Amino acid sequence: MTVTTALPFKVADLSLAEAGRHQLRLAEHEMPGLMALREEFGPSRPLAGARIAGSLHMTVQTAVLIETLVALGAQVRWASCNIFSTQNEAAAAVAVGPTGTPGAPAGVPVFAWKGETLEDYWWCTTQIFDWSVEAAAAGADWTGPNMILDDGGDATLLVHKGREFELVGAVPDAEPGDSHEWRVILDTLRASLATDPGRWTRIAEDIRGVTEETTTGVHRLYELEKSGDLLFPAINVNDSVTKSKFDNKYGIRHSLPDGLNRATDVLIGGKVAFVAGYGDVGKGAAEALRGQGARVIVSEIDPINALQAAMDGFQVARIESVLDEADIFVSGTGNQNVITVEHLLGMKHLAIVANVGHFDDEIDMAGLEALSGAEKVEIKPQVHEWRMPNGRSVLILSEGRLMNLGNATGHPSFVMSNSFTNQVLAQLELFAEDYPLGVHVLPKLLDEKVARLHLDALGVELTTLTPEQSAYLGVPVNGPFKSDHYRY
Amino acid sequence: MTVTTALPFKVADLSLAEAGRHQLRLAEHEMPGLMALREEFGPSRPLAGARIAGSLHMTVQTAVLIETLVALGAQVRWASCNIFSTQNEAAAAVAVGPTGTPGAPAGVPVFAWKGETLEDYWWCTTQIFDWSVEAAAAGADWTGPNMILDDGGDATLLVHKGREFELVGAVPDAEPGDSHEWRVILDTLRASLATDPGRWTRIAEDIRGVTEETTTGVHRLYELEKSGDLLFPAINVNDSVTKSKFDNKYGIRHSLPDGLNRATDVLIGGKVAFVAGYGDVGKGAAEALRGQGARVIVSEIDPINALQAAMDGFQVARIESVLDEADIFVSGTGNQNVITVEHLLGMKHLAIVANVGHFDDEIDMAGLEALSGAEKVEIKPQVHEWRMPNGRSVLILSEGRLMNLGNATGHPSFVMSNSFTNQVLAQLELFAEDYPLGVHVLPKLLDEKVARLHLDALGVELTTLTPEQSAYLGVPVNGPFKSDHYRY
Amino acid sequence: MTVTTALPFKVADLSLAEAGRHQLRLAEHEMPGLMALREEFGPSRPLAGARIAGSLHMTVQTAVLIETLVALGAQVRWASCNIFSTQNEAAAAVAVGPTGTPGAPAGVPVFAWKGETLEDYWWCTTQIFDWSVEAAAAGADWTGPNMILDDGGDATLLVHKGREFELVGAVPDAEPGDSHEWRVILDTLRASLATDPGRWTRIAEDIRGVTEETTTGVHRLYELEKSGDLLFPAINVNDSVTKSKFDNKYGIRHSLPDGLNRATDVLIGGKVAFVAGYGDVGKGAAEALRGQGARVIVSEIDPINALQAAMDGFQVARIESVLDEADIFVSGTGNQNVITVEHLLGMKHLAIVANVGHFDDEIDMAGLEALSGAEKVEIKPQVHEWRMPNGRSVLILSEGRLMNLGNATGHPSFVMSNSFTNQVLAQLELFAEDYPLGVHVLPKLLDEKVARLHLDALGVELTTLTPEQSAYLGVPVNGPFKSDHYRY
Amino acid sequence: MTVTTALPFKVADLSLAEAGRHQLRLAEHEMPGLMALREEFGPSRPLAGARIAGSLHMTVQTAVLIETLVALGAQVRWASCNIFSTQNEAAAAVAVGPTGTPGAPAGVPVFAWKGETLEDYWWCTTQIFDWSVEAAAAGADWTGPNMILDDGGDATLLVHKGREFELVGAVPDAEPGDSHEWRVILDTLRASLATDPGRWTRIAEDIRGVTEETTTGVHRLYELEKSGDLLFPAINVNDSVTKSKFDNKYGIRHSLPDGLNRATDVLIGGKVAFVAGYGDVGKGAAEALRGQGARVIVSEIDPINALQAAMDGFQVARIESVLDEADIFVSGTGNQNVITVEHLLGMKHLAIVANVGHFDDEIDMAGLEALSGAEKVEIKPQVHEWRMPNGRSVLILSEGRLMNLGNATGHPSFVMSNSFTNQVLAQLELFAEDYPLGVHVLPKLLDEKVARLHLDALGVELTTLTPEQSAYLGVPVNGPFKSDHYRY
Repeated sequence: MTVTTALPFKVADLSLAEAGRHQLRLAEHEMPGLMALREEFGPSRPLAGARIAGSLHMTVQTAVLIETLVALGAQVRWASCNIFSTQNEAAAAVAVGPTGTPGAPAGVPVFAWKGETLEDYWWCTTQIFDWSVEAAAAGADWTGPNMILDDGGDATLLVHKGREFELVGAVPDAEPGDSHEWRVILDTLRASLATDPGRWTRIAEDIRGVTEETTTGVHRLYELEKSGDLLFPAINVNDSVTKSKFDNKYGIRHSLPDGLNRATDVLIGGKVAFVAGYGDVGKGAAEALRGQGARVIVSEIDPINALQAAMDGFQVARIESVLDEADIFVSGTGNQNVITVEHLLGMKHLAIVANVGHFDDEIDMAGLEALSGAEKVEIKPQVHEWRMPNGRSVLILSEGRLMNLGNATGHPSFVMSNSFTNQVLAQLELFAEDYPLGVHVLPKLLDEKVARLHLDALGVELTTLTPEQSAYLGVPVNGPFKSDHYRY
Repeated sequence: MTVTTALPFKVADLSLAEAGRHQLRLAEHEMPGLMALREEFGPSRPLAGARIAGSLHMTVQTAVLIETLVALGAQVRWASCNIFSTQNEAAAAVAVGPTGTPGAPAGVPVFAWKGETLEDYWWCTTQIFDWSVEAAAAGADWTGPNMILDDGGDATLLVHKGREFELVGAVPDAEPGDSHEWRVILDTLRASLATDPGRWTRIAEDIRGVTEETTTGVHRLYELEKSGDLLFPAINVNDSVTKSKFDNKYGIRHSLPDGLNRATDVLIGGKVAFVAGYGDVGKGAAEALRGQGARVIVSEIDPINALQAAMDGFQVARIESVLDEADIFVSGTGNQNVITVEHLLGMKHLAIVANVGHFDDEIDMAGLEALSGAEKVEIKPQVHEWRMPNGRSVLILSEGRLMNLGNATGHPSFVMSNSFTNQVLAQLELFAEDYPLGVHVLPKLLDEKVARLHLDALGVELTTLTPEQSAYLGVPVNGPFKSDHYRY
Repeated sequence: MTVTTALPFKVADLSLAEAGRHQLRLAEHEMPGLMALREEFGPSRPLAGARIAGSLHMTVQTAVLIETLVALGAQVRWASCNIFSTQNEAAAAVAVGPTGTPGAPAGVPVFAWKGETLEDYWWCTTQIFDWSVEAAAAGADWTGPNMILDDGGDATLLVHKGREFELVGAVPDAEPGDSHEWRVILDTLRASLATDPGRWTRIAEDIRGVTEETTTGVHRLYELEKSGDLLFPAINVNDSVTKSKFDNKYGIRHSLPDGLNRATDVLIGGKVAFVAGYGDVGKGAAEALRGQGARVIVSEIDPINALQAAMDGFQVARIESVLDEADIFVSGTGNQNVITVEHLLGMKHLAIVANVGHFDDEIDMAGLEALSGAEKVEIKPQVHEWRMPNGRSVLILSEGRLMNLGNATGHPSFVMSNSFTNQVLAQLELFAEDYPLGVHVLPKLLDEKVARLHLDALGVELTTLTPEQSAYLGVPVNGPFKSDHYRY
Repeated sequence: MTVTTALPFKVADLSLAEAGRHQLRLAEHEMPGLMALREEFGPSRPLAGARIAGSLHMTVQTAVLIETLVALGAQVRWASCNIFSTQNEAAAAVAVGPTGTPGAPAGVPVFAWKGETLEDYWWCTTQIFDWSVEAAAAGADWTGPNMILDDGGDATLLVHKGREFELVGAVPDAEPGDSHEWRVILDTLRASLATDPGRWTRIAEDIRGVTEETTTGVHRLYELEKSGDLLFPAINVNDSVTKSKFDNKYGIRHSLPDGLNRATDVLIGGKVAFVAGYGDVGKGAAEALRGQGARVIVSEIDPINALQAAMDGFQVARIESVLDEADIFVSGTGNQNVITVEHLLGMKHLAIVANVGHFDDEIDMAGLEALSGAEKVEIKPQVHEWRMPNGRSVLILSEGRLMNLGNATGHPSFVMSNSFTNQVLAQLELFAEDYPLGVHVLPKLLDEKVARLHLDALGVELTTLTPEQSAYLGVPVNGPFKSDHYRY
């Protein structure tokens, strides 16, 4: 295999790869969980035989994840799960491979670059399911992956929808109100159906399971399970404690101010910041903003979370009550239309509006684009001033999409090390064990293991139960330490 | 019924009752959940017919709980669940009743005073099961309660053990290593068996269920359920979010510095404080101490909680590593012997040692008492300097028992309003619905209701989902908003 | 000298003294600055010959100060500077003296008890100027002190006013609008003039200087200096950095929540707290309340302090704007009528109102007392519910006076150790050096020394400049490190 | 005047200017103080006749300052005061001028670009003193400026040294140990002496005064004053409260984490961060790092600041004690060799080392460069991995220079608005009033005015003294509110 075949188009740039390799080296230092797994499982290669189709933001951290999977024996093909989130130097580094030697059999086929069109995006996603090159090299009769590692569920969606349309033998026409993205998906599958009408059915049969990274993807999986349409077992990585309570809270705590700073350079101290939602994302956002000296106002729909916010010293108000007071609006809910055009029109001049939630439609960008008389001025990439007909402007970050990815560099390596150590353990579980059809979470002991692998790097001394204490509590010395419903 | 019969001995003091009544009035203002339940359910009296045996710290807040139960129609008899925790004026106020008129049919029989002996304590506990006065007044044939409201499980224990010994017809002799308390229990039940060999069996049959307040009690209930010995359904109030995440965290955040201040008047700022455990109790303790300017070091056995502590900016170390560094030691784990005599001997002169955990033996007081050459000097009640043979002293608060009860006044009213609103809703559930045998938690919607009843008092504006958002999320507009495994 | 003569009336209680002695012992552990001075200067007794008239809250910490002065060779007579602030056990312990042996020549004459009348108070203050017993014992011809240690300036006022009236030979009649306290002062001096018309003139001549503790007293001293009426040199201890920035900020941070808790037991978390003033006192108050989970709103008259508050994340508003929002009102300004009757009438039912400022009239208590239809109900000592004619109540702490003294135990020992180490150094300066007439501050090197004496107790490692760094910065290796206008 | 003459070389790029103009517009929104001054003084043009030579980081914020000076009537020439700190688009925007029309008489001559050599730098600095073009256009006989606006004192140094060498008629040779920069300065002045031996003497005579921005520059000015060499009056802008307490503390709080994030993307949460110095810069740094979840350890040489750090809950230790514990080292002292090569060699692998202090030699970069076996690897611009002979690496940000300028974008606009509003007021003072020779600070009322002009933007409501309160306090209703020695 030459470098050329391993590399996707557009990133076959060796100097880019070299720059990315520097960053990978630093990231590895910040990802002790993954490095510990390489050490523990590298020799035994428990993922030998695994053919993983990965769809997850192609960042530096993901590069360390990919190379960890490879170190554990897997073969991998990769696409990003977001059109903006790829770091080209990371993609290049992975494509070229750790040796950095052109021509050496090393790189992983990566299909991702910063600023894809939707058509690009879904083309890339189909590429992670086309293993004909690898099959040819191996003389094998399979043509697709046997594992999916997913973030947001797009790879899983493609398999499920592809098979569904193959079963009925036709891809439906788009409906009038359908989104552009849905039309692209239908076109993609229509083309696939025309060229290979059994492709997705074959792929679905080969898949041993999927490990899913995010709330969104997990939500889709539970709906598939509920409707009886789920085609293979899934592990919900998102709800590991070391994922959801760390990635969401501590990741956002880091990347929200980072994104605000890179995008606007506006002093956060002294400002009034509004945070929609006080789940883990909102908690991290509120803490970060307070830590920078902002006065934070929170909104919530859930009385329990609302009470927590109040107990933590935050004003809790509806957005309508504080439109003329807040300077920075942050949405972190997982809901849609949390910030409406009506809200935008009521804001102060040059209010900053940012989304760190799970979905892209928390801010009604479609409504804003449709607003008569509104004008969009690019201040710099991913930072736009929208001049509104009332004479005021708002600054919208990352087009209303996830600003921690668009304006910053996403969650930092250490946070992702937690998430991705869960991912690797989940891949190991699904590949090695016969999990029944359904959506599962990782056993608590593995969740605790993920945490354990990150303690040394922080200088944490863990206390060990004495045998007497262990007996007294009825808790094993090495865990698991908590009941499943413990809330941390 | 005259006041004399309603009042337990030692608290029949009307001026004490009057002082207590003032405090109850202020506490009612801080317990909006209970007051809202009085308003909602007072007219329909859904607890009419309920005969509740209550065993829970007899504080001002509990007085508001008791009078709420009465306002909802229940009859109540009450004991404290801790020998030190009774506030005599609160006991007196409840015993005299809200009208404050001696002789008026108002008060609730309360068997509790500050500073009981263990013998007193178990005598008091037996009194809440003796409803002969009430039965006589009602011309009824029952002689005991039909509901238990428990904290720590002592009332539940008495019924289970009483019935167990009645079944075999004998109370066993104490074993050599048995605690003094266990001997008192055996003596109590031995006397009962002698005078009425079917008493606890009858009582157990009448009980519709128990609502349990604390981790300890819940732990015992799950063990009874696991072993098949549970005699009636139980609702685990402790694990309502609005209980465990509020009482433990925000209650301790309040009462730990309060207790330290009242006990020692020592400046917390600038000190090094060690907190054993980073569960909800530890989180509240660490936040409170940091909020007062202490440098906080945390210990943990669970790698996940340890990682949380590190992410929250705390040093995580074993107690052995920081003995000569810390000025204040706080144990909040639920484990035993967290602070051993060995540890005490290694501490700095006049280090302060306090326990806010669920159990009394987190600090090895028995070991300290047995330490040759140690001398105990009372600085003031509940504050003792232990002079150790190494020439140094430690200050032990509340004899190693719960200092937030012994040195402060326990959790404040607003926190207890959350816990006790859960308690009342649990009593309503168990009394009205046929719960199967087992240990249950309150439905999430009721948990959310508890929170909802406390928002107005804090000026919280709750945001309401639009119908479109509700449909999009698949979440009802009025909740429940979260899955059962959501961690808050 | 027998114990009886050393003891003022009402505190000649040996068991009280013993209890106080325990507390002194613990306080000494928390007052490393004073203990270090005893060690450094005890052998040389540089205050031998000093006769100090002390007027300062007679607390446990002051007891350690007094005994430090004595250890350095001084003779001392003491009164409190506030009618409520005496801790009787501390007064008793000092009166009896460190040996605790009745009859032993040990105790210091103390004239102070908790709950003096204004008549008592000024009688006590005169007693610290009557050194006839000591003079007789020494066979000396002086009859008064030669040093004053003052807090608030009352002792200094008495000397200045006494001499002023002696000069004109008459004490003026009170004017119609004069306060009750001023009338008591006039009566006191009128009686003195009648019995010994040259007393205060003689005393004034003997005084080498006064060291003044507080903002108020310092303010008076600067006014005396400005008007040319100052009779002896003064050292402004208040403006030592280790006094004003520590006592005000860190003392209040400790004692405000302590006082709120002891007075009301109300959960601070989740509440809206209003703090008038964002000087050092307000900064400490706001930090403490935020640290307990309150949402804090600040008011300010100075745009610089207002901007600081905003930068620290606090809402800055006029009290009128938040009357119906706040649950707790704290005044810490040094101004009068900061909280008016109009404000009180606009507050929520059972709002808590507390003063931690330098003066007693920050809350318009006179106006409240004059309010027709208002009713005062004592909840407990120093906690009063004022029922207002609008049907709402407010809870006033410590009758509107300093609640950290009335409801708590004042600043904790460690804070006072800083202040009092400044006091002792100032006494040493004034007694040993010939300071010119005027108001002085301590040299920065002594201020830094105060800090230095408190570092070990906190485990602080100080970094030392290399000779090269010292030369580079132009700063001596051992300080002083900062210019006089440095703001810390 | 054509654009070409207004523009310095390298930045005559109109699209760059347009991008810069967008940023200026946003910055103006964040600089309410400067915009208020334009509104207040724009019509009267009090700086008409002022010819200002400015030497200050040529950032977006400085651009708003420059255009404010111009709006007030001044003529301006500008250089940066740091070889790395210029934002080229800001320089271009100012050079082109607000109309953005090439050829329009608008722009200000700017001599600054990112990445100057030292030779470039001092050439640029000389250009701000060469007003021959402006003189020719005005038909005037002056050839230089009459005001200096300085940051760090390089412009002031050039005038003083230039005149000094002109007086003796010779520029000395460099000494063996002299820095490269000093040699460049000597070369520059030698060339000047050769071509125009009276230039700096003439310039010095014309200068009415200098307003100095930073600690460093102020330090130099006080030394000149002390030695009697100061040539013209100076206003110390640095020590305005609204400068030093805001710029240093709140500016660093913002830009330190910003710079760390942009440079390394490393999660700050959970890390151990060491901050050398707990002055205003250190306070801001420590607060920012704690706000991101780091555990912060502080070092100090001054016992008062050390005590403050301890009281604020930070561990205070010498760097030697925590070399193997800290992950991030931040120096913010104003001293040299705070982090030595010895320290670097003792650090953990990939420890991050950053300087936010006033000087560039806080980290011994010269020593590191001279270290045998050390290797420097550029990760990206301003981020270098130094591989040390012990096998470990450290990450040095911005070559050891100010990382908040090199890795971030400096202090944000709102902070600089405070500093620069002081600058403009100082220029107005010096230009309008006859200040005596010496170093002055701005009158407190102007300092308060700076704060006042920034309150509305933050929604701050200021409280106003009643006439009675004003009389009671002896403080004017509109300020000044504090004595000169008040510490804020």
